[in-house]
Amino acid sequence: MANDDFMRLAREEALRGIRNGHGGPFGAVLVRNGSVVSSAHNEVLRQKDPTAHAEILAIRRAAGVLDRPHLDDCVLYTTCEPCPMCLGAIAWARIPRLYFGCTRNDAEEIGFSDRQIYALIRDEPSTILLERISLERSSCLQLFHEWRNHGDHILY
Amino acid sequence: MANDDFMRLAREEALRGIRNGHGGPFGAVLVRNGSVVSSAHNEVLRQKDPTAHAEILAIRRAAGVLDRPHLDDCVLYTTCEPCPMCLGAIAWARIPRLYFGCTRNDAEEIGFSDRQIYALIRDEPSTILLERISLERSSCLQLFHEWRNHGDHILY
Repeated sequence: MANDDFMRLAREEALRGIRNGHGGPFGAVLVRNGSVVSSAHNEVLRQKDPTAHAEILAIRRAAGVLDRPHLDDCVLYTTCEPCPMCLGAIAWARIPRLYFGCTRNDAEEIGFSDRQIYALIRDEPSTILLERISLERSSCLQLFHEWRNHGDHILY
Repeated sequence: MANDDFMRLAREEALRGIRNGHGGPFGAVLVRNGSVVSSAHNEVLRQKDPTAHAEILAIRRAAGVLDRPHLDDCVLYTTCEPCPMCLGAIAWARIPRLYFGCTRNDAEEIGFSDRQIYALIRDEPSTILLERISLERSSCLQLFHEWRNHGDHILY
């Protein structure tokens, strides 16, 4: 299968989500060695879970199938540029390449907040108001020492 | 209960995760009307899920308890500044305020990638290499039209 075929599968996922009213019009497919490992569409409304974006669900499913948190041998196809939450998940999963269809600006035009969340994370003016207050840094730092001294601490 | 008490609960969550080897040294608590709605620690290794950060798990649990994707009446306490994935989730959940202990720089000092993922999302030089390739935007845009024309499409 070629890139176009995988993107078609991602679109078909999105269509399933739209027709069932599961959430936004977004689909994603994860591919490894030319085969589909997982696919998903946005299920924020169905699951009543704000993190249930297509990319997050595809990543969680692929990690489950492969039984490991790192997907560094996988490629992601997604019908829309990932939001910062999903882009973060992609980075934590060590996915090295993604193909995307629509852009964050396209998503904004139909009413989604992707571009405003990018602005928030980039410390640019954003419609999203979030108060972030530092508290008890020194006692929280002790957790890091505890973790370092714990015999089998593992980085991921 | 006061802010200090909720942060103590978040630290206790983190400690449970460290002692059980579930993942990184991070804990989070979500509070509504002065009561704890959910709490979680990082379980990336236990669940083999790269998205299983403390904040993501706390948000998913609270959304499950309250049976809605929006947590705009909740406050988050987290032992470390949220990574971009978690900050995105916080924004999608419409959480208006968060208290954090350690910083992204503290997390980097013990080996975690938070700061590099911030750099990736801010289009600054980053150690994280991720190829992002645009593909079939116009056919993906058709999904947006389909969604808009769908009777019960709902923004979230």
